[in-house]
Amino acid sequence: MIYITLISFLGPKGTFTHEAANMMGGELIPYCTIPAVLESVASNETSYGVVPIENSIEGPVGITLDSLAHKFDLKIFKEIIIPINQNLIVNPGCKLEDIEDVYSHSQAISQCQEFISENKIQPHYAVSTANAAKSIIGDKSKAAIGNRKAAELYGLEILKANIQDTDNNETRFVVVSNECHKPTGNDKTSIIFSIYEDRPGELYKILGIFQKNNINLTKIESRPSKKGLGKYLFFVDFYGHKDDDVIKSIINEIDENTYFLKVLGSFPEF
Amino acid sequence: MIYITLISFLGPKGTFTHEAANMMGGELIPYCTIPAVLESVASNETSYGVVPIENSIEGPVGITLDSLAHKFDLKIFKEIIIPINQNLIVNPGCKLEDIEDVYSHSQAISQCQEFISENKIQPHYAVSTANAAKSIIGDKSKAAIGNRKAAELYGLEILKANIQDTDNNETRFVVVSNECHKPTGNDKTSIIFSIYEDRPGELYKILGIFQKNNINLTKIESRPSKKGLGKYLFFVDFYGHKDDDVIKSIINEIDENTYFLKVLGSFPEF
Repeated sequence: MIYITLISFLGPKGTFTHEAANMMGGELIPYCTIPAVLESVASNETSYGVVPIENSIEGPVGITLDSLAHKFDLKIFKEIIIPINQNLIVNPGCKLEDIEDVYSHSQAISQCQEFISENKIQPHYAVSTANAAKSIIGDKSKAAIGNRKAAELYGLEILKANIQDTDNNETRFVVVSNECHKPTGNDKTSIIFSIYEDRPGELYKILGIFQKNNINLTKIESRPSKKGLGKYLFFVDFYGHKDDDVIKSIINEIDENTYFLKVLGSFPEF
Repeated sequence: MIYITLISFLGPKGTFTHEAANMMGGELIPYCTIPAVLESVASNETSYGVVPIENSIEGPVGITLDSLAHKFDLKIFKEIIIPINQNLIVNPGCKLEDIEDVYSHSQAISQCQEFISENKIQPHYAVSTANAAKSIIGDKSKAAIGNRKAAELYGLEILKANIQDTDNNETRFVVVSNECHKPTGNDKTSIIFSIYEDRPGELYKILGIFQKNNINLTKIESRPSKKGLGKYLFFVDFYGHKDDDVIKSIINEIDENTYFLKVLGSFPEF
Protein backbone atom coordinates (compact mmCIF):
# COMPACT_ATOMS: atom_id res chain seq x y z
CA MET A 1 0.00 0.00 0.00
CA ILE A 2 1.31 3.39 -0.98
CA TYR A 3 0.55 6.37 1.21
CA ILE A 4 0.48 9.68 -0.66
CA THR A 5 0.46 12.93 1.30
CA LEU A 6 -2.23 15.30 0.01
CA ILE A 7 -1.29 18.97 0.02
CA SER A 8 -3.78 21.74 -0.69
CA PHE A 9 -2.64 25.11 -2.01
CA LEU A 10 -4.13 28.41 -3.10
CA GLY A 11 -4.67 27.75 -6.80
CA PRO A 12 -5.08 27.73 -9.64
CA LYS A 13 -1.96 26.04 -11.00
CA GLY A 14 0.72 28.46 -12.14
CA THR A 15 0.51 30.87 -9.19
CA PHE A 16 3.38 31.76 -6.87
CA THR A 17 1.71 29.65 -4.18
CA HIS A 18 1.89 26.70 -6.58
CA GLU A 19 5.63 27.36 -6.90
CA ALA A 20 5.97 27.30 -3.09
CA ALA A 21 3.82 24.16 -2.75
CA ASN A 22 6.06 22.41 -5.26
CA MET A 23 8.78 22.47 -2.61
CA MET A 24 6.73 20.00 -0.54
CA GLY A 25 6.70 16.33 -1.53
CA GLY A 26 3.20 15.02 -2.18
CA GLU A 27 0.15 15.33 -4.39
CA LEU A 28 -0.83 18.97 -4.85
CA ILE A 29 -4.50 19.94 -4.97
CA PRO A 30 -5.50 23.51 -5.88
CA TYR A 31 -8.29 25.26 -3.93
CA CYS A 32 -9.96 28.52 -4.95
CA THR A 33 -9.61 30.57 -1.77
CA ILE A 34 -7.36 30.79 1.26
CA PRO A 35 -10.15 29.79 3.69
CA ALA A 36 -10.90 26.75 1.48
CA VAL A 37 -7.25 25.64 1.72
CA LEU A 38 -7.33 26.02 5.52
CA GLU A 39 -10.70 24.24 5.77
CA SER A 40 -9.37 21.28 3.76
CA VAL A 41 -6.65 20.79 6.38
CA ALA A 42 -8.95 21.39 9.36
CA SER A 43 -11.37 18.73 8.04
CA ASN A 44 -8.50 16.29 7.30
CA GLU A 45 -9.23 16.20 3.56
CA THR A 46 -5.57 17.10 3.12
CA SER A 47 -2.58 16.80 5.46
CA TYR A 48 -0.99 20.15 4.68
CA GLY A 49 -2.09 23.44 3.16
CA VAL A 50 0.11 26.11 1.57
CA VAL A 51 -0.97 29.77 1.66
CA PRO A 52 0.83 33.13 1.38
CA ILE A 53 1.18 35.04 4.67
CA GLU A 54 3.25 38.13 3.87
CA ASN A 55 5.03 39.90 1.06
CA SER A 56 8.07 42.07 1.67
CA ILE A 57 6.63 44.94 -0.39
CA GLU A 58 2.88 44.75 0.02
CA GLY A 59 2.79 43.50 3.60
CA PRO A 60 0.55 40.97 5.28
CA VAL A 61 -2.02 38.81 3.54
CA GLY A 62 -4.96 39.89 5.71
CA ILE A 63 -7.24 36.94 4.99
CA THR A 64 -4.54 34.44 6.03
CA LEU A 65 -3.77 36.22 9.30
CA ASP A 66 -7.44 36.78 10.11
CA SER A 67 -8.40 33.18 9.30
CA LEU A 68 -5.60 31.75 11.46
CA ALA A 69 -6.54 34.14 14.28
CA HIS A 70 -10.31 33.81 14.28
CA LYS A 71 -11.57 30.86 12.24
CA PHE A 72 -9.25 27.88 12.40
CA ASP A 73 -7.16 26.11 15.03
CA LEU A 74 -4.31 25.13 12.75
CA LYS A 75 -0.58 25.02 13.33
CA ILE A 76 2.12 26.60 11.22
CA PHE A 77 4.25 23.55 10.37
CA LYS A 78 6.77 25.12 8.02
CA GLU A 79 7.61 28.39 6.31
CA ILE A 80 8.70 28.78 2.68
CA ILE A 81 10.15 32.00 1.30
CA ILE A 82 10.40 32.56 -2.44
CA PRO A 83 11.60 35.57 -4.45
CA ILE A 84 8.83 37.16 -6.50
CA ASN A 85 9.77 38.07 -10.04
CA GLN A 86 6.90 39.56 -11.98
CA ASN A 87 6.80 39.26 -15.75
CA LEU A 88 4.76 40.91 -18.47
CA ILE A 89 3.02 37.98 -20.15
CA VAL A 90 1.58 38.37 -23.64
CA ASN A 91 0.25 36.39 -26.59
CA PRO A 92 3.01 35.11 -28.91
CA GLY A 93 4.36 37.84 -31.19
CA CYS A 94 2.90 40.79 -29.23
CA LYS A 95 4.87 44.00 -28.82
CA LEU A 96 4.80 46.43 -25.90
CA GLU A 97 3.13 49.13 -28.01
CA ASP A 98 0.17 46.80 -28.75
CA ILE A 99 -0.70 46.47 -25.07
CA GLU A 100 -3.58 48.60 -23.77
CA ASP A 101 -4.74 46.62 -20.75
CA VAL A 102 -2.97 44.53 -18.17
CA TYR A 103 -4.57 41.96 -15.84
CA SER A 104 -3.28 40.53 -12.58
CA HIS A 105 -3.85 39.93 -8.89
CA SER A 106 -4.11 43.22 -6.98
CA GLN A 107 -0.80 42.58 -5.15
CA ALA A 108 1.03 41.99 -8.44
CA ILE A 109 -0.49 45.18 -9.91
CA SER A 110 0.70 47.09 -6.84
CA GLN A 111 4.18 45.63 -7.15
CA CYS A 112 4.52 46.84 -10.77
CA GLN A 113 2.94 50.30 -10.53
CA GLU A 114 5.92 52.16 -11.95
CA PHE A 115 6.14 49.91 -15.00
CA ILE A 116 2.38 50.17 -15.58
CA SER A 117 2.24 53.95 -15.36
CA GLU A 118 5.42 54.53 -17.41
CA ASN A 119 3.95 52.44 -20.21
CA LYS A 120 0.46 53.97 -19.88
CA ILE A 121 -1.28 50.61 -19.64
CA GLN A 122 -4.67 50.34 -17.94
CA PRO A 123 -4.52 47.94 -14.95
CA HIS A 124 -7.37 45.53 -14.12
CA TYR A 125 -7.70 43.18 -11.16
CA ALA A 126 -8.00 39.41 -11.52
CA VAL A 127 -8.54 36.75 -8.88
CA SER A 128 -5.01 35.37 -9.33
CA THR A 129 -1.96 35.84 -11.53
CA ALA A 130 -2.74 32.53 -13.25
CA ASN A 131 -6.37 33.51 -13.94
CA ALA A 132 -5.09 36.77 -15.40
CA ALA A 133 -2.82 34.87 -17.79
CA LYS A 134 -5.68 32.59 -18.84
CA SER A 135 -8.00 35.55 -19.45
CA ILE A 136 -5.78 37.24 -22.06
CA ILE A 137 -5.39 34.25 -24.39
CA GLY A 138 -5.96 35.34 -27.99
CA ASP A 139 -6.27 39.09 -27.35
CA LYS A 140 -3.19 41.00 -28.53
CA SER A 141 -4.12 44.27 -26.80
CA LYS A 142 -4.05 42.55 -23.42
CA ALA A 143 -1.20 41.47 -21.15
CA ALA A 144 -1.02 39.73 -17.78
CA ILE A 145 1.47 39.97 -14.93
CA GLY A 146 2.63 36.74 -13.34
CA ASN A 147 5.31 34.09 -13.10
CA ARG A 148 7.05 32.03 -15.76
CA LYS A 149 4.93 28.97 -14.94
CA ALA A 150 1.70 30.81 -15.79
CA ALA A 151 3.08 31.84 -19.20
CA GLU A 152 4.16 28.25 -19.99
CA LEU A 153 0.87 26.77 -18.79
CA TYR A 154 -1.23 28.83 -21.21
CA GLY A 155 1.10 28.96 -24.25
CA LEU A 156 1.94 32.62 -23.66
CA GLU A 157 5.25 34.49 -23.84
CA ILE A 158 7.21 36.66 -21.47
CA LEU A 159 7.66 40.03 -23.20
CA LYS A 160 9.56 41.60 -20.32
CA ALA A 161 10.94 39.91 -17.21
CA ASN A 162 11.36 41.38 -13.70
CA ILE A 163 9.00 44.33 -14.08
CA GLN A 164 8.46 44.74 -10.31
CA ASP A 165 9.20 48.24 -8.91
CA THR A 166 11.77 47.15 -6.34
CA ASP A 167 14.04 44.25 -5.69
CA ASN A 168 13.83 42.64 -2.24
CA ASN A 169 10.45 41.36 -3.38
CA GLU A 170 9.83 38.04 -1.67
CA THR A 171 6.79 36.27 -0.31
CA ARG A 172 6.64 34.14 2.79
CA PHE A 173 4.27 31.18 2.60
CA VAL A 174 3.21 29.00 5.49
CA VAL A 175 2.44 25.31 5.42
CA VAL A 176 -0.36 24.65 7.91
CA SER A 177 -1.21 21.35 9.51
CA ASN A 178 -3.10 19.89 12.47
CA GLU A 179 0.15 18.74 14.03
CA CYS A 180 3.19 20.63 15.30
CA HIS A 181 6.70 20.36 13.94
CA LYS A 182 9.23 18.75 16.28
CA PRO A 183 12.14 20.88 17.54
CA THR A 184 15.08 20.98 15.11
CA GLY A 185 17.40 23.29 17.07
CA ASN A 186 16.85 26.17 14.63
CA ASP A 187 13.21 27.07 15.07
CA LYS A 188 10.84 29.99 15.13
CA THR A 189 7.55 30.31 16.99
CA SER A 190 4.49 32.34 15.90
CA ILE A 191 1.99 33.73 18.39
CA ILE A 192 -0.98 36.11 18.25
CA PHE A 193 -2.06 38.20 21.22
CA SER A 194 -4.34 41.09 22.16
CA ILE A 195 -3.41 43.55 24.88
CA TYR A 196 -5.71 45.25 27.35
CA GLU A 197 -6.40 48.50 25.43
CA ASP A 198 -7.41 50.41 28.53
CA ARG A 199 -4.02 49.91 30.19
CA PRO A 200 -1.34 52.13 28.63
CA GLY A 201 2.10 50.61 28.08
CA GLU A 202 0.85 47.02 27.75
CA LEU A 203 2.67 46.35 24.46
CA TYR A 204 5.84 47.74 26.04
CA LYS A 205 5.40 45.28 28.92
CA ILE A 206 4.97 42.30 26.57
CA LEU A 207 8.06 43.22 24.53
CA GLY A 208 9.95 43.48 27.83
CA ILE A 209 9.24 39.77 28.49
CA PHE A 210 11.19 38.87 25.32
CA GLN A 211 13.89 41.42 26.11
CA LYS A 212 14.70 40.13 29.59
CA ASN A 213 14.95 36.57 28.23
CA ASN A 214 17.21 37.64 25.33
CA ILE A 215 14.81 36.29 22.73
CA ASN A 216 14.82 38.17 19.43
CA LEU A 217 11.67 38.92 17.46
CA THR A 218 11.83 38.27 13.72
CA LYS A 219 8.45 39.86 13.01
CA ILE A 220 5.87 42.09 14.65
CA GLU A 221 2.72 42.86 12.74
CA SER A 222 -0.38 44.62 13.97
CA ARG A 223 -3.80 43.73 12.55
CA PRO A 224 -7.16 45.25 13.41
CA SER A 225 -8.89 43.07 16.00
CA LYS A 226 -12.20 43.90 14.24
CA LYS A 227 -13.42 45.41 17.49
CA GLY A 228 -12.92 49.07 16.48
CA LEU A 229 -10.19 51.47 15.38
CA GLY A 230 -7.08 51.44 17.57
CA LYS A 231 -7.72 47.87 18.79
CA TYR A 232 -5.16 45.44 17.51
CA LEU A 233 -4.07 41.85 17.39
CA PHE A 234 -0.30 41.48 17.31
CA PHE A 235 1.32 38.73 15.27
CA VAL A 236 4.79 38.10 16.62
CA ASP A 237 7.44 35.62 15.42
CA PHE A 238 10.52 34.92 17.49
CA TYR A 239 13.42 32.49 17.75
CA GLY A 240 12.97 29.26 19.70
CA HIS A 241 10.55 26.31 19.87
CA LYS A 242 7.44 26.36 22.02
CA ASP A 243 8.67 23.21 23.80
CA ASP A 244 11.95 24.89 24.88
CA ASP A 245 11.91 25.73 28.60
CA VAL A 246 12.64 29.44 28.13
CA ILE A 247 9.95 29.79 25.43
CA LYS A 248 7.42 27.91 27.60
CA SER A 249 8.02 30.37 30.41
CA ILE A 250 7.77 33.39 28.05
CA ILE A 251 4.47 32.09 26.65
CA ASN A 252 3.10 31.60 30.18
CA GLU A 253 4.06 35.12 31.19
CA ILE A 254 2.48 36.61 28.04
CA ASP A 255 -0.67 34.58 28.72
CA GLU A 256 -0.94 36.14 32.19
CA ASN A 257 -0.64 39.66 30.73
CA THR A 258 -2.95 39.52 27.71
CA TYR A 259 -6.65 38.80 27.32
CA PHE A 260 -6.14 36.70 24.19
CA LEU A 261 -3.19 34.50 23.26
CA LYS A 262 -2.92 31.88 20.56
CA VAL A 263 0.24 29.92 19.78
CA LEU A 264 0.26 29.33 16.02
CA GLY A 265 3.09 26.83 16.22
CA SER A 266 6.82 26.32 16.00
CA PHE A 267 8.61 25.46 12.80
CA PRO A 268 12.14 25.27 11.36
CA GLU A 269 13.52 28.59 10.11
CA PHE A 270 13.61 28.68 6.30
CA MET B 1 -13.11 88.56 -4.50
CA ILE B 2 -14.27 85.20 -3.20
CA TYR B 3 -11.68 82.67 -2.14
CA ILE B 4 -12.82 79.06 -2.47
CA THR B 5 -10.80 76.29 -0.86
CA LEU B 6 -10.19 73.43 -3.28
CA ILE B 7 -10.26 69.96 -1.77
CA SER B 8 -9.22 66.85 -3.66
CA PHE B 9 -10.56 63.43 -2.69
CA LEU B 10 -10.30 59.82 -3.85
CA GLY B 11 -13.18 59.67 -6.32
CA PRO B 12 -15.34 59.07 -8.10
CA LYS B 13 -18.35 60.76 -6.50
CA GLY B 14 -20.45 58.47 -4.36
CA THR B 15 -17.60 56.71 -2.55
CA PHE B 16 -17.09 56.63 1.21
CA THR B 17 -14.17 59.05 0.75
CA HIS B 18 -16.63 61.46 -0.90
CA GLU B 19 -18.81 61.16 2.20
CA ALA B 20 -15.80 62.03 4.40
CA ALA B 21 -14.72 64.92 2.14
CA ASN B 22 -18.24 66.36 2.41
CA MET B 23 -17.43 67.13 6.04
CA MET B 24 -14.90 69.73 4.88
CA GLY B 25 -16.11 73.12 3.62
CA GLY B 26 -14.92 73.86 0.07
CA GLU B 27 -15.14 72.76 -3.52
CA LEU B 28 -14.60 69.03 -3.83
CA ILE B 29 -12.62 67.64 -6.78
CA PRO B 30 -12.45 63.88 -7.37
CA TYR B 31 -9.12 62.27 -8.39
CA CYS B 32 -8.73 58.71 -9.65
CA THR B 33 -6.01 57.39 -7.33
CA ILE B 34 -4.65 58.03 -3.85
CA PRO B 35 -1.23 59.18 -5.18
CA ALA B 36 -3.03 61.63 -7.54
CA VAL B 37 -4.90 63.16 -4.57
CA LEU B 38 -1.64 63.55 -2.64
CA GLU B 39 0.18 64.94 -5.70
CA SER B 40 -2.54 67.59 -6.18
CA VAL B 41 -1.86 68.90 -2.68
CA ALA B 42 1.94 68.65 -2.98
CA SER B 43 1.82 70.70 -6.20
CA ASN B 44 -0.61 73.24 -4.67
CA GLU B 45 -3.37 72.50 -7.19
CA THR B 46 -5.59 71.93 -4.16
CA SER B 47 -5.24 73.02 -0.53
CA TYR B 48 -6.37 69.78 1.09
CA GLY B 49 -6.68 66.15 0.04
CA VAL B 50 -8.89 63.47 1.61
CA VAL B 51 -7.81 59.82 1.49
CA PRO B 52 -8.63 56.70 3.54
CA ILE B 53 -5.84 55.54 5.86
CA GLU B 54 -7.27 52.60 7.82
CA ASN B 55 -10.38 50.50 8.24
CA SER B 56 -11.24 48.85 11.54
CA ILE B 57 -11.89 45.48 9.86
CA GLU B 58 -9.55 45.33 6.88
CA GLY B 59 -6.64 47.27 8.37
CA PRO B 60 -4.32 49.82 6.84
CA VAL B 61 -4.66 51.28 3.37
CA GLY B 62 -1.15 50.36 2.22
CA ILE B 63 -0.87 52.82 -0.64
CA THR B 64 -1.73 55.78 1.64
CA LEU B 65 0.81 54.78 4.30
CA ASP B 66 3.51 53.98 1.74
CA SER B 67 2.94 57.23 -0.19
CA LEU B 68 3.09 59.36 2.97
CA ALA B 69 6.24 57.50 4.09
CA HIS B 70 8.20 57.40 0.85
CA LYS B 71 6.82 59.72 -1.82
CA PHE B 72 5.38 62.93 -0.39
CA ASP B 73 6.27 65.39 2.33
CA LEU B 74 2.74 66.20 3.37
CA LYS B 75 1.23 66.85 6.78
CA ILE B 76 -1.80 65.17 8.29
CA PHE B 77 -4.00 68.20 9.04
CA LYS B 78 -7.13 66.47 10.27
CA GLU B 79 -8.66 63.03 10.77
CA ILE B 80 -12.23 62.05 9.93
CA ILE B 81 -13.80 58.78 11.07
CA ILE B 82 -17.00 57.52 9.51
CA PRO B 83 -18.98 54.32 10.09
CA ILE B 84 -19.06 52.05 7.05
CA ASN B 85 -22.42 50.56 6.23
CA GLN B 86 -22.36 48.40 3.14
CA ASN B 87 -25.50 47.93 1.09
CA LEU B 88 -26.53 45.54 -1.66
CA ILE B 89 -27.33 47.89 -4.56
CA VAL B 90 -29.46 46.65 -7.46
CA ASN B 91 -31.45 47.86 -10.44
CA PRO B 92 -35.01 48.92 -9.53
CA GLY B 93 -37.35 45.96 -9.04
CA CYS B 94 -34.60 43.33 -8.70
CA LYS B 95 -34.94 40.49 -6.20
CA LEU B 96 -32.18 38.71 -4.29
CA GLU B 97 -32.78 35.46 -6.20
CA ASP B 98 -32.08 37.26 -9.53
CA ILE B 99 -28.55 38.22 -8.46
CA GLU B 100 -25.71 36.08 -9.82
CA ASP B 101 -22.76 38.48 -9.65
CA VAL B 102 -21.75 41.23 -7.26
CA TYR B 103 -19.23 44.01 -7.94
CA SER B 104 -17.33 46.20 -5.50
CA HIS B 105 -13.99 47.44 -4.24
CA SER B 106 -11.91 44.59 -2.82
CA GLN B 107 -12.17 45.95 0.74
CA ALA B 108 -15.99 46.10 0.49
CA ILE B 109 -16.07 42.53 -0.89
CA SER B 110 -13.90 41.40 2.05
CA GLN B 111 -16.18 43.15 4.52
CA CYS B 112 -19.26 41.31 3.22
CA GLN B 113 -17.84 37.81 2.69
CA GLU B 114 -20.40 36.03 4.85
CA PHE B 115 -23.34 37.64 3.05
CA ILE B 116 -21.82 36.85 -0.35
CA SER B 117 -21.13 33.20 0.41
CA GLU B 118 -24.48 32.60 2.15
CA ASN B 119 -26.28 33.91 -0.91
CA LYS B 120 -24.00 32.08 -3.37
CA ILE B 121 -23.23 35.22 -5.38
CA GLN B 122 -20.03 35.44 -7.42
CA PRO B 123 -17.87 38.37 -6.27
CA HIS B 124 -15.92 40.58 -8.73
CA TYR B 125 -13.51 43.40 -7.99
CA ALA B 126 -14.07 46.97 -9.16
CA VAL B 127 -11.84 50.02 -8.79
CA SER B 128 -14.26 51.68 -6.34
CA THR B 129 -17.69 51.13 -4.79
CA ALA B 130 -19.08 53.92 -6.99
CA ASN B 131 -17.63 52.41 -10.18
CA ALA B 132 -19.16 49.11 -9.20
CA ALA B 133 -22.60 50.74 -8.89
CA LYS B 134 -22.22 52.43 -12.27
CA SER B 135 -21.16 49.16 -13.93
CA ILE B 136 -24.34 47.25 -13.04
CA ILE B 137 -26.84 49.72 -14.50
CA GLY B 138 -29.44 47.91 -16.59
CA ASP B 139 -28.34 44.34 -15.76
CA LYS B 140 -30.74 42.60 -13.40
CA SER B 141 -28.44 39.65 -12.66
CA LYS B 142 -25.83 41.99 -11.21
CA ALA B 143 -25.54 43.82 -7.90
CA ALA B 144 -23.00 46.20 -6.40
CA ILE B 145 -21.90 46.80 -2.83
CA GLY B 146 -21.55 50.41 -1.68
CA ASN B 147 -23.07 53.32 0.15
CA ARG B 148 -26.48 54.99 -0.14
CA LYS B 149 -25.00 57.90 -2.11
CA ALA B 150 -23.77 55.59 -4.90
CA ALA B 151 -27.25 54.05 -5.25
CA GLU B 152 -28.90 57.49 -5.46
CA LEU B 153 -26.32 58.82 -7.92
CA TYR B 154 -27.00 56.09 -10.48
CA GLY B 155 -30.76 55.62 -10.04
CA LEU B 156 -30.31 52.27 -8.30
CA GLU B 157 -32.00 50.79 -5.24
CA ILE B 158 -30.80 49.36 -1.97
CA LEU B 159 -32.11 45.79 -1.81
CA LYS B 160 -30.54 45.04 1.56
CA ALA B 161 -28.86 47.46 3.96
CA ASN B 162 -25.97 46.78 6.38
CA ILE B 163 -24.71 43.56 4.80
CA GLN B 164 -21.21 43.87 6.32
CA ASP B 165 -20.05 40.83 8.35
CA THR B 166 -19.35 42.69 11.58
CA ASP B 167 -20.35 45.91 13.25
CA ASN B 168 -17.51 48.13 14.49
CA ASN B 169 -16.81 48.79 10.83
CA GLU B 170 -15.43 52.29 10.50
CA THR B 171 -12.85 53.94 8.29
CA ARG B 172 -10.42 56.63 9.31
CA PHE B 173 -9.67 59.21 6.62
CA VAL B 174 -6.92 61.81 6.78
CA VAL B 175 -6.99 65.29 5.36
CA VAL B 176 -3.48 66.12 4.15
CA SER B 177 -2.07 69.57 3.59
CA ASN B 178 1.25 71.37 3.19
CA GLU B 179 0.72 73.17 6.49
CA CYS B 180 0.39 71.92 10.06
CA HIS B 181 -2.66 72.29 12.26
CA LYS B 182 -2.21 74.59 15.26
CA PRO B 183 -2.45 73.09 18.75
CA THR B 184 -6.05 72.84 20.01
CA GLY B 185 -5.39 71.25 23.41
CA ASN B 186 -6.82 67.90 22.28
CA ASP B 187 -4.41 66.72 19.63
CA LYS B 188 -2.77 63.62 18.25
CA THR B 189 0.58 63.32 16.50
CA SER B 190 1.52 60.79 13.79
CA ILE B 191 5.09 59.65 13.22
CA ILE B 192 6.83 56.98 11.14
CA PHE B 193 10.12 55.42 12.14
CA SER B 194 12.47 52.55 11.29
CA ILE B 195 14.53 50.81 13.92
CA TYR B 196 18.03 49.40 13.57
CA GLU B 197 17.18 45.79 12.66
CA ASP B 198 20.53 44.43 13.79
CA ARG B 199 20.04 45.61 17.37
CA PRO B 200 17.54 43.42 19.27
CA GLY B 201 15.09 45.18 21.58
CA GLU B 202 15.06 48.48 19.64
CA LEU B 203 11.26 48.66 19.39
CA TYR B 204 11.05 47.98 23.11
CA LYS B 205 13.42 50.89 23.71
CA ILE B 206 11.34 53.29 21.57
CA LEU B 207 8.09 52.32 23.30
CA GLY B 208 9.89 52.93 26.59
CA ILE B 209 10.39 56.60 25.62
CA PHE B 210 6.60 57.06 25.47
CA GLN B 211 6.13 55.03 28.64
CA LYS B 212 8.47 57.06 30.83
CA ASN B 213 6.80 60.30 29.64
CA ASN B 214 3.29 58.92 30.29
CA ILE B 215 2.23 59.46 26.69
CA ASN B 216 -0.35 56.97 25.40
CA LEU B 217 -0.24 55.50 21.92
CA THR B 218 -3.55 55.40 20.03
CA LYS B 219 -2.17 53.33 17.16
CA ILE B 220 0.83 51.20 16.27
CA GLU B 221 0.99 49.72 12.81
CA SER B 222 3.86 47.89 11.17
CA ARG B 223 4.41 48.10 7.41
CA PRO B 224 7.09 46.41 5.33
CA SER B 225 9.93 48.86 4.73
CA LYS B 226 10.30 47.34 1.23
CA LYS B 227 13.87 46.37 2.17
CA GLY B 228 13.16 42.66 2.80
CA LEU B 229 11.04 40.41 5.02
CA GLY B 230 11.23 41.23 8.74
CA LYS B 231 12.20 44.87 8.10
CA TYR B 232 9.50 47.28 9.10
CA LEU B 233 8.41 50.87 9.24
CA PHE B 234 6.31 51.64 12.30
CA PHE B 235 3.42 54.09 12.08
CA VAL B 236 2.63 55.37 15.55
CA ASP B 237 -0.08 57.83 16.67
CA PHE B 238 -0.05 59.26 20.18
CA TYR B 239 -1.65 62.01 22.26
CA GLY B 240 -0.14 65.49 22.21
CA HIS B 241 0.96 68.13 19.68
CA LYS B 242 4.42 68.17 18.17
CA ASP B 243 4.89 71.73 19.47
CA ASP B 244 4.26 70.67 23.11
CA ASP B 245 7.50 70.58 25.11
CA VAL B 246 7.14 66.96 26.22
CA ILE B 247 6.33 65.79 22.67
CA LYS B 248 9.29 67.77 21.27
CA SER B 249 11.62 65.99 23.68
CA ILE B 250 10.09 62.57 22.89
CA ILE B 251 10.53 63.18 19.16
CA ASN B 252 14.16 64.22 19.69
CA GLU B 253 14.90 61.09 21.71
CA ILE B 254 13.26 58.85 19.09
CA ASP B 255 15.28 60.61 16.39
CA GLU B 256 18.51 59.76 18.22
CA ASN B 257 17.52 56.07 18.44
CA THR B 258 16.20 55.34 14.95
CA TYR B 259 17.76 55.56 11.52
CA PHE B 260 14.63 57.04 9.94
CA LEU B 261 12.03 59.32 11.50
CA LYS B 262 9.31 61.36 9.84
CA VAL B 263 6.76 63.46 11.70
CA LEU B 264 3.53 63.28 9.70
CA GLY B 265 1.90 66.07 11.68
CA SER B 266 -0.32 66.93 14.60
CA PHE B 267 -4.07 67.32 14.31
CA PRO B 268 -7.18 67.60 16.50
CA GLU B 269 -8.58 64.27 17.70
CA PHE B 270 -11.82 63.41 15.86
